[in-house]
Amino acid sequence: MKPYQEMSKSELEAAFEQLENEFEEFCARGLKLDMSRGKPSSEQMDICMGLLDAASSRDHYISANGMDCRNYGALTGIPEAKKLLGDLIGVPEEMMIVMGNASLPIMYDMVAHSVLHGVCGSTPWMKLEGKVKFLCPVPGYDRHFAITEFHGIEMINIPMTPDGPDMDLVEKYVYEDDMVKGIWCVPQYSNPQGITYSDETVRRFASLKPAAEDFRIYWDNAYAVHHLYDKKNRDSLLNIYEECEKQGNPDLFFEFCSTSKISFAGAGIAGVASSRKNREWIQSYMTIQIISYDKLNQLRHAYYFKNSYGIRLHMKKHAEIIRPKFQKVLEILDRELTGLGIGEWTNPKGGYFISFEALEGCARKIVGRCKEAGVTLTGAGATFPYKKDPKDSNIRIAPTYPELDELQEAAELFCLVVKLVSVEKLLGK
Amino acid sequence: MKPYQEMSKSELEAAFEQLENEFEEFCARGLKLDMSRGKPSSEQMDICMGLLDAASSRDHYISANGMDCRNYGALTGIPEAKKLLGDLIGVPEEMMIVMGNASLPIMYDMVAHSVLHGVCGSTPWMKLEGKVKFLCPVPGYDRHFAITEFHGIEMINIPMTPDGPDMDLVEKYVYEDDMVKGIWCVPQYSNPQGITYSDETVRRFASLKPAAEDFRIYWDNAYAVHHLYDKKNRDSLLNIYEECEKQGNPDLFFEFCSTSKISFAGAGIAGVASSRKNREWIQSYMTIQIISYDKLNQLRHAYYFKNSYGIRLHMKKHAEIIRPKFQKVLEILDRELTGLGIGEWTNPKGGYFISFEALEGCARKIVGRCKEAGVTLTGAGATFPYKKDPKDSNIRIAPTYPELDELQEAAELFCLVVKLVSVEKLLGK
Repeated sequence: MKPYQEMSKSELEAAFEQLENEFEEFCARGLKLDMSRGKPSSEQMDICMGLLDAASSRDHYISANGMDCRNYGALTGIPEAKKLLGDLIGVPEEMMIVMGNASLPIMYDMVAHSVLHGVCGSTPWMKLEGKVKFLCPVPGYDRHFAITEFHGIEMINIPMTPDGPDMDLVEKYVYEDDMVKGIWCVPQYSNPQGITYSDETVRRFASLKPAAEDFRIYWDNAYAVHHLYDKKNRDSLLNIYEECEKQGNPDLFFEFCSTSKISFAGAGIAGVASSRKNREWIQSYMTIQIISYDKLNQLRHAYYFKNSYGIRLHMKKHAEIIRPKFQKVLEILDRELTGLGIGEWTNPKGGYFISFEALEGCARKIVGRCKEAGVTLTGAGATFPYKKDPKDSNIRIAPTYPELDELQEAAELFCLVVKLVSVEKLLGK
Repeated sequence: MKPYQEMSKSELEAAFEQLENEFEEFCARGLKLDMSRGKPSSEQMDICMGLLDAASSRDHYISANGMDCRNYGALTGIPEAKKLLGDLIGVPEEMMIVMGNASLPIMYDMVAHSVLHGVCGSTPWMKLEGKVKFLCPVPGYDRHFAITEFHGIEMINIPMTPDGPDMDLVEKYVYEDDMVKGIWCVPQYSNPQGITYSDETVRRFASLKPAAEDFRIYWDNAYAVHHLYDKKNRDSLLNIYEECEKQGNPDLFFEFCSTSKISFAGAGIAGVASSRKNREWIQSYMTIQIISYDKLNQLRHAYYFKNSYGIRLHMKKHAEIIRPKFQKVLEILDRELTGLGIGEWTNPKGGYFISFEALEGCARKIVGRCKEAGVTLTGAGATFPYKKDPKDSNIRIAPTYPELDELQEAAELFCLVVKLVSVEKLLGK
């Protein structure tokens, strides 16, 4: 097809009329589909039902260190859960703290605690003059940004490149400004672009010498084993722990992981890996906050998956379920939009999203029109701090939850709407 | 026996010598027993093993409102869990928010959030001039006091009476000082005394007209169904929710409950009941903090207990297990110490503790000597803010965890040590 930018006004008008008609037909179908979140499908959870029978009354409930998992105790988690998650992200089990069913509250608590009490003995952020700042690679994960916004932290956009965040800019801020206290990273199969940070990017992160002693990298390794393809077609991420060790920077990072998108989204286990000094800091407030997390669910995961290979095998089954969904969306995007010059999109090798870049100023309209026709996408702007996409162009597509036939319809609608809104823009409507 | 205070010096010296010998014998036995926490025994959890088979792969995982409990969603909990806990404490299910495995983090988060963001729109506590204060009925629960101490909140001791906290004092502080923002209450079978607040006390709480608009009662109904005896020998607590409604004070309280001492101490479910306004406030930070709590564990509890009667029946079995332990300790205290004038203790009808009042200045020594002989009690002072018992006399005895024969030995040691330390005091040693 001819790029839209090369069309004459009358060609665009003709296209517009046809697209409007097609859009009305879509609306008449009464679609009702929520693609707003990176939510696993029922099928993905159906293959994990055995988890519900692990740590049953027929099993024993004593952890590897002799702890009765039904009772209080083991504030930082049971050894087998630490090993399971530690092996998953490549850190020694003693570096892990395993908590409840989600990693988000672990991050939230860290930020809240930093504001109230400071990081590892440094001044509480609430007592600092001026605004604490976080670097936010964009587009990124809306819930990260929500945590920092909620705590009154100023967020600075850092553009993503195919190798990860723009490290020149990261270094500039981190070196020059001691009010820059953190950066949100999803280093593997990033949300929403599916970018895995290059080795050089990870090394540059690990060798940062921040102006602020309490600067930390929030390394949210949410998609550590969430590959869509087989071994030869996967991204691999350098180990931040090992790199920080090499650079003599052991305290620089917190690494988060969870089984939310491995076992059950609502009932997994989650943890954080960090240096001894950082862990002591985390434990200093955990010990006030809770007696212990749900060790039976930790044990359930350890019994069911047995080890990190168990998880890796399980994730192959996930890939078999969601790969066709990614491929279906990509196939339709390719068929409908290639060559039109009205959008670009990522082709991730893992993770949960496809990121779409529309023409400037079109994202909000596209999401709005899709909604009119019954398909809810992630709100435009959500992938940026303060929900403000400066170009209003990024749209996050979450293909995992819908059934394949629904997804096909939704993707076709999406492409139609992209065309429609783009033509409108080019016509100056 | 003759009261120690009436003994002559030589009688006391003789007693001292004998007690010292007995103590050395005890030490030689090499006891090793931890009675420091209110921890359920293995037996109590053994009778709940069926919980581990509820919500198994043979059950379905869809909650009463059609939610797939395996996936994300239902931030405030599933309806059946709200009903289960709501019925337990006598509030409508829509007033409940059900969260994770423990009520302590619910309280912690509320306090932390109040400091950072304020309560229901009022000024964040960190922005107030002067110190925020909490009233602390004493003796009380150490983990409550730890939360407020950790957040830099000044704690004011309120003496307990047989009817609950000294309400004249509570009213005085709450009416006169708008920096008083909260009070910690364990209204039924209080920790550690086992006191249940009288109807008048509850009514006076419900009709408080605080100077501070953001004053709240932290009503930790941890032992709502934790009776030791049958119906005619139980305490009953007036319903704070109903009383606050009657008084036109619906926003005055947060009521906490959990199944930590019903199902599994480490893997129960916990919730908070409050008014719509308060719930909206809680949800305003929950929505930033987490996507959803572990709904499968909520469902597991709903399937297993079926309804609050299921819990009440289950608690009868708990009583059968722990009542003999309470009775054993009381029997030994009675046999060894009655009439000696060196201590008083409570005879609770429920809850997890016996509270012992030693002669002034003796608690720390008693706990220390017990520890020398291998029995760890709750640290002296722990039942007071800042761990400072002004009289150094209160000791919390937690009889639930040990086996009956261990408990007997520990109680005998305890009585011996009370005598020994009391004699030392009377001799001015």
